Amino acid sequence: MGEFELIRRYFQRPPPVGSAVVLGVGDDCALLQPSPGHQLAISSDMLVEGRHFFPDVDPEALGHKALAVNLSDLAAMGARPLGFTLAIALPQADEAWLAALARGLFALADASACPLVGGDTTRGPLNLCITVFGEVLPGRALRRGAARADDGLYLSGRTGEARLALELLRGGDWPGRLDAALRARLERPTPRNALGQALAATAGVHAAIDVSDGLVGDLDHILRASGVGAEILLEDLPVAPALQALPEAQRLACLLAGGDDYELLFTAAPEAHPAVLAAAAASGTSVTRIGRITASAGLKLLDAARREVPFTPQGFDHFA
Amino acid sequence: MGEFELIRRYFQRPPPVGSAVVLGVGDDCALLQPSPGHQLAISSDMLVEGRHFFPDVDPEALGHKALAVNLSDLAAMGARPLGFTLAIALPQADEAWLAALARGLFALADASACPLVGGDTTRGPLNLCITVFGEVLPGRALRRGAARADDGLYLSGRTGEARLALELLRGGDWPGRLDAALRARLERPTPRNALGQALAATAGVHAAIDVSDGLVGDLDHILRASGVGAEILLEDLPVAPALQALPEAQRLACLLAGGDDYELLFTAAPEAHPAVLAAAAASGTSVTRIGRITASAGLKLLDAARREVPFTPQGFDHFA
Repeated sequence: MGEFELIRRYFQRPPPVGSAVVLGVGDDCALLQPSPGHQLAISSDMLVEGRHFFPDVDPEALGHKALAVNLSDLAAMGARPLGFTLAIALPQADEAWLAALARGLFALADASACPLVGGDTTRGPLNLCITVFGEVLPGRALRRGAARADDGLYLSGRTGEARLALELLRGGDWPGRLDAALRARLERPTPRNALGQALAATAGVHAAIDVSDGLVGDLDHILRASGVGAEILLEDLPVAPALQALPEAQRLACLLAGGDDYELLFTAAPEAHPAVLAAAAASGTSVTRIGRITASAGLKLLDAARREVPFTPQGFDHFA
Repeated sequence: MGEFELIRRYFQRPPPVGSAVVLGVGDDCALLQPSPGHQLAISSDMLVEGRHFFPDVDPEALGHKALAVNLSDLAAMGARPLGFTLAIALPQADEAWLAALARGLFALADASACPLVGGDTTRGPLNLCITVFGEVLPGRALRRGAARADDGLYLSGRTGEARLALELLRGGDWPGRLDAALRARLERPTPRNALGQALAATAGVHAAIDVSDGLVGDLDHILRASGVGAEILLEDLPVAPALQALPEAQRLACLLAGGDDYELLFTAAPEAHPAVLAAAAASGTSVTRIGRITASAGLKLLDAARREVPFTPQGFDHFA
């Protein structure tokens, strides 16, 4: 199977009717027609074997996740997905592996109305690079730098299960059982695109980020970009059943510095609280207010008695 | 140096004033504002160490080439560059290497008015994935499938020098001397964006592709997509001085199946010939008519007496 046959067999499909795709896979460029008056939102994520996934990863889950982490960036901006490119380096053309990868990729692409429009295929150490395109009305994108003092701080879903799943997969000294549901939290994250788009359309919603490197580390990006601080009430953090049996230090590490959560962390003016809950309900996504933005810099983690709990933020850094 | 410091130091620069960039590096997504009424052209190319470049490649040249091969795809569509993302996997954070890479990358980005808008940085086997965005008016993109019988067949610049440089670098049994100019044809290709945009604005110009995998192999993409054939008059192919001393078989291999040329191969109606020459002159790019499109399928290579010259097309295929 040659390069062009590989592309034709696994990655070339007609773009969905009614999509923004004017011209899909197969020419020098893809052509997209964004809606009039919209801005284009673009994000790119590269997944490397041994770094972002294990060599024996289920290829169907990998196809899902490679697109999911990119869709999550569109969600964090409140942009509607339009399409994506996939550039892939493969050590060899393994047909069963490619078929499974494509299955996972296209299932999420179809569910997200985000068609594959082009890309590149080459031989090399396994590497998937997806670039995703979305659209958003001018002035509505949810930027990191838009948080304001007294905003409520909100989290979609809950954090920490992906980290616990990873530790259990690694076979370390963590209590718990790796069932399918927990493993799916690591390998098949759900990007929060419906919520992101609903929030971008909600007056009073200010800043957002997707939690990919840990809640505290990603919140720090919002705080620095906005020139503000925050308080998190630890007892308000939603805790998954799988995390409840963990010793406190491990539970906090999962909740606050887990990574791979792909939940949305966002801020909204106090008076927008009912509208935030309405956006959450309309998008079928649970949302919890976990704290607030403060005028003074720095992050405080508070227990039920509002005493500060020490915690060293450690987001994931590929070169630290 | 951590991941975020690496990005800040080498890849974060304010977007140029007057560009389409609303928001550049540093948020979940970049934001672009394309011109009203335009379509978006998108292409993605991945460069892998050992496959697309030697491990000891000059990083400044690599930075140039990684962007050049992507800009070349925009040129082949006739789209105006708007910006690009860079996702990069690095075995380590080598500061001198990164500084040189960034120098080559940004020099071409500045010269092409195509700013870096975002991307990703991770650790892994060296891999550069660039996705480039351009804009083009609806109906004006130069597609592969638009060639018509009796169109003239045109080539910008000349092919073959990159292949000769590669063979000399490999130290094989090829005659010739690898001087700086010849090496630059391999390592610092010039994307033909001004020509591509001028051609897209020229009535009667039909199909185009950029020659990256060899003239015959890439022409074959046009012929199949358009359902036509072609004749190339070999004596009309421009031959670089460095190629003139080669034995005929090697010269033809360079000219017809060289790879890494990044010239434009395009077709235009016979009556558009003066306008094609005018577009070439206006963009400061040499263009040669090298043959014509035929209604009957297949490619014929003809000598001066119009006798067919046998040649087996061998475009580059990563999985052949």
